[in-house]
Amino acid sequence: MRFFSDNAAPAHPKVIEAIAASNRLDTAYDGDELSARLDGAFSALFEIEVRAFWVTTGTAANCLALAALCPPYRGIICHKDAHIEVDEAGAPGFFTGGAKLILLEGAGAKLTPDAVAAACDRIRADVHQVQPAAISITNATEYGLVYRASEVNVLGDLAKERGLAFHMDGARLANALATTGESPADVTWRAGVDALSFGFVKNGGLNAEVLILFRTELADEIAVRRKRAGHLLSKGRMLAAQILALLEDDLWLENARAANAAAQALAKAAPDRLVYPVEANELFLNVTADEAVRLRGQGVEFYEWGPGEIRLVTSWDSDARAVEQLAAAIAAL
Amino acid sequence: MRFFSDNAAPAHPKVIEAIAASNRLDTAYDGDELSARLDGAFSALFEIEVRAFWVTTGTAANCLALAALCPPYRGIICHKDAHIEVDEAGAPGFFTGGAKLILLEGAGAKLTPDAVAAACDRIRADVHQVQPAAISITNATEYGLVYRASEVNVLGDLAKERGLAFHMDGARLANALATTGESPADVTWRAGVDALSFGFVKNGGLNAEVLILFRTELADEIAVRRKRAGHLLSKGRMLAAQILALLEDDLWLENARAANAAAQALAKAAPDRLVYPVEANELFLNVTADEAVRLRGQGVEFYEWGPGEIRLVTSWDSDARAVEQLAAAIAAL
Amino acid sequence: MRFFSDNAAPAHPKVIEAIAASNRLDTAYDGDELSARLDGAFSALFEIEVRAFWVTTGTAANCLALAALCPPYRGIICHKDAHIEVDEAGAPGFFTGGAKLILLEGAGAKLTPDAVAAACDRIRADVHQVQPAAISITNATEYGLVYRASEVNVLGDLAKERGLAFHMDGARLANALATTGESPADVTWRAGVDALSFGFVKNGGLNAEVLILFRTELADEIAVRRKRAGHLLSKGRMLAAQILALLEDDLWLENARAANAAAQALAKAAPDRLVYPVEANELFLNVTADEAVRLRGQGVEFYEWGPGEIRLVTSWDSDARAVEQLAAAIAAL
Amino acid sequence: MRFFSDNAAPAHPKVIEAIAASNRLDTAYDGDELSARLDGAFSALFEIEVRAFWVTTGTAANCLALAALCPPYRGIICHKDAHIEVDEAGAPGFFTGGAKLILLEGAGAKLTPDAVAAACDRIRADVHQVQPAAISITNATEYGLVYRASEVNVLGDLAKERGLAFHMDGARLANALATTGESPADVTWRAGVDALSFGFVKNGGLNAEVLILFRTELADEIAVRRKRAGHLLSKGRMLAAQILALLEDDLWLENARAANAAAQALAKAAPDRLVYPVEANELFLNVTADEAVRLRGQGVEFYEWGPGEIRLVTSWDSDARAVEQLAAAIAAL
Repeated sequence: MRFFSDNAAPAHPKVIEAIAASNRLDTAYDGDELSARLDGAFSALFEIEVRAFWVTTGTAANCLALAALCPPYRGIICHKDAHIEVDEAGAPGFFTGGAKLILLEGAGAKLTPDAVAAACDRIRADVHQVQPAAISITNATEYGLVYRASEVNVLGDLAKERGLAFHMDGARLANALATTGESPADVTWRAGVDALSFGFVKNGGLNAEVLILFRTELADEIAVRRKRAGHLLSKGRMLAAQILALLEDDLWLENARAANAAAQALAKAAPDRLVYPVEANELFLNVTADEAVRLRGQGVEFYEWGPGEIRLVTSWDSDARAVEQLAAAIAAL
Repeated sequence: MRFFSDNAAPAHPKVIEAIAASNRLDTAYDGDELSARLDGAFSALFEIEVRAFWVTTGTAANCLALAALCPPYRGIICHKDAHIEVDEAGAPGFFTGGAKLILLEGAGAKLTPDAVAAACDRIRADVHQVQPAAISITNATEYGLVYRASEVNVLGDLAKERGLAFHMDGARLANALATTGESPADVTWRAGVDALSFGFVKNGGLNAEVLILFRTELADEIAVRRKRAGHLLSKGRMLAAQILALLEDDLWLENARAANAAAQALAKAAPDRLVYPVEANELFLNVTADEAVRLRGQGVEFYEWGPGEIRLVTSWDSDARAVEQLAAAIAAL
Repeated sequence: MRFFSDNAAPAHPKVIEAIAASNRLDTAYDGDELSARLDGAFSALFEIEVRAFWVTTGTAANCLALAALCPPYRGIICHKDAHIEVDEAGAPGFFTGGAKLILLEGAGAKLTPDAVAAACDRIRADVHQVQPAAISITNATEYGLVYRASEVNVLGDLAKERGLAFHMDGARLANALATTGESPADVTWRAGVDALSFGFVKNGGLNAEVLILFRTELADEIAVRRKRAGHLLSKGRMLAAQILALLEDDLWLENARAANAAAQALAKAAPDRLVYPVEANELFLNVTADEAVRLRGQGVEFYEWGPGEIRLVTSWDSDARAVEQLAAAIAAL
Repeated sequence: MRFFSDNAAPAHPKVIEAIAASNRLDTAYDGDELSARLDGAFSALFEIEVRAFWVTTGTAANCLALAALCPPYRGIICHKDAHIEVDEAGAPGFFTGGAKLILLEGAGAKLTPDAVAAACDRIRADVHQVQPAAISITNATEYGLVYRASEVNVLGDLAKERGLAFHMDGARLANALATTGESPADVTWRAGVDALSFGFVKNGGLNAEVLILFRTELADEIAVRRKRAGHLLSKGRMLAAQILALLEDDLWLENARAANAAAQALAKAAPDRLVYPVEANELFLNVTADEAVRLRGQGVEFYEWGPGEIRLVTSWDSDARAVEQLAAAIAAL
């Protein structure tokens, strides 16, 4: 029973089929017929003209976007527990050429408008202090909380007011949307988001993520930066194929709903142990060291998230019986 | 009849099968069972302990290696037509943090020891001029020529003598080895090579390349740099699977032989038009603009490589009939 | 009555004389006779063989050192109020190629061994999290506190134990040493410091700072990095001249003592207002907005350091009468 | 008799006087009264509103400008013997974050419009090849040749047509203008130049160079980049003082004329030995190894510029008698 990470789940069978079906001679890089369909497919999904770039990792999607939104000599406001700060090996520093992450506190890894405004106000407007150029939020957050469109919108207005670009790390955006039922458009560009890292790997994909540009004028720069970072695959059609397969019949949304449902099933088993409300596919539970040992003893695999806290992540293929078993095991602790 | 590039060919069916077979829950990143087998598999192939890192592009393999071999403030000696200089969008500058490519002339994109020694001698040993830290060669070269082990060895000795690290871009190393019959060990570490970009994508792979470190002490740094560049895929097992499939029963060598044989068939059709001897799977032909038009008229697709010159590239799956047809068409020009 | 910053003070007359005296034809860059004397002069001062590099700013001294001590993909542990974090426009990110500053809390901008050890322990030893490579402390700190040799030594031992390099920003090291009477050697290399930014500009110099390397094997790299950053002046002799003038007869120490004495005189006038003990030449005072207005009304210039707090900085040339006047004004608030 | 480099000459006495006179308490960095006068002084000289930034080296002036004119992922077209390529330790790569220098041939280190146009045409307009973003020329060139305003203008038009920014390294612009008698405006912004490194150090200054922005909208970025590179001196007034002293009564032009006159006196002594026409203050002479030894024997110091070639550089203070002696010595070879 593996509840380590949705990262580790297999790809959806349709994704594998799509890769196999795409395995024919075609133009290299992104000149093929499948890659050519991405802009259109995502423009339809987001109800506006966007530019869509496949990449193979969320780190690449995030950091290519940040490099285009923030010059080397400025900073990006984000949560102190944001993935870009904590788990990307300093990739933002590499891709931007040394821009600074300006770290904020905030419950559940969420940025609040007050915290952002205060951070901006603390910075003297001179050449000695690094001036912010962008905000980056993660939706769903690293602790599985969801920003509603209205919340994003307030941050988007603030960004505009302060002259900041706005990036969303949507590694688990699908889970967020599956929870809120809001439209992709409402929670992104209509709320002021300029660029979105749209995650597919944790949600049934094999190794395809998408960088969506709502500011389409950045597309040429992103295309060059992607190549320059070694992220322009010569058989990119196999990435496009995965993405198109997941978009078809809203498979991406179906997958996210399945993962979320598994998380809710687990949440119900231990309402008093939840560190955060469960709004996506991650659970953080208060569990003593002793209890953790007992869970492991029953074959459950998970991260210890700190003293007395564990993380469980469900995924699109979470086995119903395993979920049930785990729920029972938690309830019985 | 597409002879644009081996980049564009499909993957070998066994590679697709291997990806499908690897599609199960396992530890993320490179903690899975397949990735764990790479070091051993390549150590066997190279007859010495190596460290092997999957990446998705040759640019990533090349530039991660160069970043580990050359500090930002020094330079890398390479041919002026080397892929790292001409076709990687400045990626070496990005990965190294601004190191300089020191460009040399040389017939057929080969570096000669004399040219390398002369380049070193021209550089004043002071802080004003960028001092070289590494040599990088491509085997087979960008013009389809092959370095024999003895040639590499002379460059390797020179590198050692001058205190330079030695990198080989082996995007088409398989084709080179298929031609010479030399051992992987002889043409690399036994000849002084420190790090090798070993290409699989042009040779039946889908999107897996391998960075081989003969200086295994660089492995920790490469592991971090790979992650930091966004090149640590969460389901890396699908890359390992491709590579292991191509290593099995020397499929990689078989593929390269097929591509080389197709190139030889074409070469025989036009011995007087060859700009370079055909030693791998690329042909450069003297063809007038008029003749080029006629070839295209018969459905042949290829690059114009300059005035009066075209490039043809064969691949592991080059269709025998298409090759025959093209050979006839060239002969008939 | 300017108590803004020691930055703004004039240079000592002997420094100007030395510049004028050095104004003759000599070998360019650092090949001149004066520059050649620096290594020896500082080796004598520090009682060990060191390498000494003139630069024109503390930012350059700090960041050249950090770039040599920390690779782009690792991090530097420092206080969250350290000058390198707060007031150098992100220069560490620029010079290192994107290394991360790992920010710690600590009273009076001092790093404690416990805080450093805890920070190291919090970082998972994997490729996803940025691993620390160095510690940097400021002595005297940004709040005018002094690290004694014994305190530095504990941090130095910890650095060694954790495999970290150790940098000291000594923009006001002279003031620290003037207070403690400890030897330059004891508070630096004997306590484990690898590289020191030794400040002269705030202490009677015009535009000369010195980067001292106790790890002399880094000298070649620093020499190249200095040039590459545009910091190798062609008439470097004028920098060497300043430094040698300040070293002569311990003028640097005399200057620091004068600045410290002025600070003590002010401190005595307002013992209850001090935010920190006054150990060097900076005072942070609790002063209401109203009181601040009254001080300004009497012609005193200073920084507001936050709500209800002001900063006063004395310098080598602080006028005795101005100090007395200000002391009286503060006492009378 | 030192004819090594104008770099090594002393500063003009008025420059030293001005430094001494500026040595008083004032606002730090560039907030002082002297620094504040630079924009106005250079706007008057160039007959248009400019922004003027003091820095301490030509490398800093050049590379700050290039970093603002060229993003990390593009390239700068320059001569293969340009100072930025040959003698700045790779500083352009450091300041730009890895942009590429695209190197052209050209007699006397001059770029011709044809060479620039051909270089642009050779580059495929795709993401694989580095696209140019700027042109940089040196005036007077590294071989002492002068671009007339009309020549610069043709390059300026070409730059505009190709969408390239235009930088001039004017380390010896004073010498060029002293020769042609053209106006500073005509040879720079009126001819399409966007940013100019205006040299004072080789022409009577001590350590002050000026970066002139004709595209004033870049000023904020340059101000931050200057700080971030450690080039914002806290007592910048001493740099401003030097520059203002050299501007007064056209002392800069007078100095350049003196250096040029000395060069002409030497040129007359050896008209048949000149490798290039002497248009500024540098001479390149065909001199056998044997003859070089004899010159050195008479106490003349100079660079050997290659086999059978030496470089002599005169400066503002070149001693008339030494020049005469050297002229005689050369004539007598």
